[in-house]
Amino acid sequence: MSKLRVHCFSVSLDGYSAGPDQDLANPLGVGGLAVFGWQFGTRSHQQMHGGEGGTTGFDDDMVRQGFEGIGAWILGRNMFGPVRGPWPDESWKGWWGENPVYHTPVFVLTHHARAPITMQGGTTFHFVTDGIHAALARAKEAADGKDVRLGGGVSTMRQYLRAGLVDDMHFVISPALIGSGERLFQDLDLPTLGYELKGLTASPGATHVKIGKRVP
Amino acid sequence: MSKLRVHCFSVSLDGYSAGPDQDLANPLGVGGLAVFGWQFGTRSHQQMHGGEGGTTGFDDDMVRQGFEGIGAWILGRNMFGPVRGPWPDESWKGWWGENPVYHTPVFVLTHHARAPITMQGGTTFHFVTDGIHAALARAKEAADGKDVRLGGGVSTMRQYLRAGLVDDMHFVISPALIGSGERLFQDLDLPTLGYELKGLTASPGATHVKIGKRVP
Repeated sequence: MSKLRVHCFSVSLDGYSAGPDQDLANPLGVGGLAVFGWQFGTRSHQQMHGGEGGTTGFDDDMVRQGFEGIGAWILGRNMFGPVRGPWPDESWKGWWGENPVYHTPVFVLTHHARAPITMQGGTTFHFVTDGIHAALARAKEAADGKDVRLGGGVSTMRQYLRAGLVDDMHFVISPALIGSGERLFQDLDLPTLGYELKGLTASPGATHVKIGKRVP
Repeated sequence: MSKLRVHCFSVSLDGYSAGPDQDLANPLGVGGLAVFGWQFGTRSHQQMHGGEGGTTGFDDDMVRQGFEGIGAWILGRNMFGPVRGPWPDESWKGWWGENPVYHTPVFVLTHHARAPITMQGGTTFHFVTDGIHAALARAKEAADGKDVRLGGGVSTMRQYLRAGLVDDMHFVISPALIGSGERLFQDLDLPTLGYELKGLTASPGATHVKIGKRVP
């Protein structure tokens, strides 16, 4: 059974997963880089971006596992880019260059229709205008038996969690204080939504948490 | 220089420091015990409550250090008890029995005046009706050169942090999901208030975080 999985979604000590004022210079909002900083030094992250070296160990294992068995991705519009409202033209193709890290179909939630974009390396961005359930159905079909990974951002994550559609979630509490921005857990009652703590591991760089559906 | 210190204030993975619906049976709100559970098994906690045994190590060190060099405490009304509004009589004397754990003067913030209560073991509860600054001034005077410890609850903690009056804070992220209740970091921009991360240690039971004023 194909699952909807979240991996490596990061939260600051004070509860923020992105800083305020996202723009071209600050894809994660101002200060948001510190929240996801634990993974940049890992070998898997380095390799994914064409680099060499990097750390091995638990942080690295978590980054790598997040790409294993994934047949499609779902992203929110704001994770895809800083453009708001109707697409002014076809020029914006994501933050990730000509050969994005996904290498699968990627379904981008938006209110504004746009033709698919085929990138190098197997990534195709599809734009879904009829909501989170439709995006999940299309992603599962495209994944062809593999799992679907929900990438973010914060608002998209909350929507899928609130609908109870996320099967397994790995999130990471980072050693950073952000002070403002978007909160993952705002108005999100995970136990009532059927989620429970499945595991917790403190690495040198961060605290890794796994949650999933409570087994009845 | 006498400091205002916070120790062992605990937060769930999803950001709550107390569950909802505090009452006589649930001093920390429903589900709130899980948030502070990391400290109950420690030797210092056991000894403080007349027990024996208990764990040693980092968690225990943190509990013990929270009582060292403290000359007075400040508590919010809701941490002192479940009674709301005017005091119906003099019967409520806190959650902690005849010999409370404080062994110092304790200043309780309230809108409703009440005569001091002298308990066994050196604890006297004083009721302060003229606000957080007045309570801090009285506590510092009573502490006579020692530090003042701010005990909680959540609303009191936020008020003192927002006013920039807390000098050092140790808080603990507990392996628990609560889903609702009171959030420590709601509308609290710590970096803007001048606080920065001073240290982080993962113990087997919890993630310990120290924050303090940024050194200019």
